Amino acid sequence: MTTSPKITLASGSAIRASMLRDAGVDFAVVKPGVDESIIKEDAIAQGDGLEQLATKLATAKCLAVAEKTAGIVIGSDQILEFEDRALDKPANMDDARARLLEMQGAPHTLINAVVVALDGQVIWRHLDRPKLVMRAMTEAEIDAYLAAAGSDILSSVGAYQVEKLGARLFDDIKGNYFAVLGMSLLPLLGVLRREGAIGF
Amino acid sequence: MTTSPKITLASGSAIRASMLRDAGVDFAVVKPGVDESIIKEDAIAQGDGLEQLATKLATAKCLAVAEKTAGIVIGSDQILEFEDRALDKPANMDDARARLLEMQGAPHTLINAVVVALDGQVIWRHLDRPKLVMRAMTEAEIDAYLAAAGSDILSSVGAYQVEKLGARLFDDIKGNYFAVLGMSLLPLLGVLRREGAIGF
Repeated sequence: MTTSPKITLASGSAIRASMLRDAGVDFAVVKPGVDESIIKEDAIAQGDGLEQLATKLATAKCLAVAEKTAGIVIGSDQILEFEDRALDKPANMDDARARLLEMQGAPHTLINAVVVALDGQVIWRHLDRPKLVMRAMTEAEIDAYLAAAGSDILSSVGAYQVEKLGARLFDDIKGNYFAVLGMSLLPLLGVLRREGAIGF
Repeated sequence: MTTSPKITLASGSAIRASMLRDAGVDFAVVKPGVDESIIKEDAIAQGDGLEQLATKLATAKCLAVAEKTAGIVIGSDQILEFEDRALDKPANMDDARARLLEMQGAPHTLINAVVVALDGQVIWRHLDRPKLVMRAMTEAEIDAYLAAAGSDILSSVGAYQVEKLGARLFDDIKGNYFAVLGMSLLPLLGVLRREGAIGF
């Protein structure tokens, strides 16, 4: 019987770790420490679309850890696409407020890339594009939300955590919910199974 | 300023309570204590489809509590539709094993009804039909799953908890993920907001 490859999540995201843990996956966490700005500048110079950029970022995070880590390494990236622009994580609560004021009452897309390496080589890539429709909100409602949700929301590109109070901001979510949370869990579990990293 | 109506969840389901709590909703739980078999027999006698049955069951649970409870009362029901049949919760682990053996490699639907009453009168009904595709599994894989997941799965009509180890059983989930968990959260939050039961 061969040994199962160990699994490493190349992400500091609490929700990604929580998704894997809930599914009973045994894994280690290593933060990738990638300078995303260089990859973004390079992608812009090459005329990449946001899907290519998300895949490049997920690949860079995956390989930064996989270079030093045997077994399976999982990298992931999420880009918020709003009116054909990519939005970064808000820097502070004022930014978050401006972001929500801009996005309320309109749809946006969360482009999500997952990349898996085995022993330093990329063996799988996956892309999802769930679409979310934020409900129309007044400034007073947005302020009430920000006061109640607190600075935890700054870890999300959309200034919301849909798995918590952020659910209150949406009229509709279409597409893969796991990709909304930050990682396409079901196809990822399929790869882990195929590679013998999880038993069933 | 008028007083906000209080909210009561007419369900003993842990996951439904958890969804509302995560969304920051303040509510009480009252188990409805409805005899579902009478409603089911009646629905069969009347030639109801499964969607009508789910709505009748959710309405009965909602009103059983709303008769004695002022404010907002939320009732919900979920029926698993597999090959044009309704499947009930498995009675024990042997039942669960037989269920999973039958359902593996095939799609099924979770018909989900939510009913809201205000001061004893139904004011809103909602129906969702998310579709899930269970992956092809061997008997050994199903046994490994059942051993790892334990008897908690007996609380689910499908003998799985997709928010936990059950994620490993699926190739794909299409439709409203909250309805898969047991209650269509986003439109429900819309009603709570409209009725002034939640602030934003």
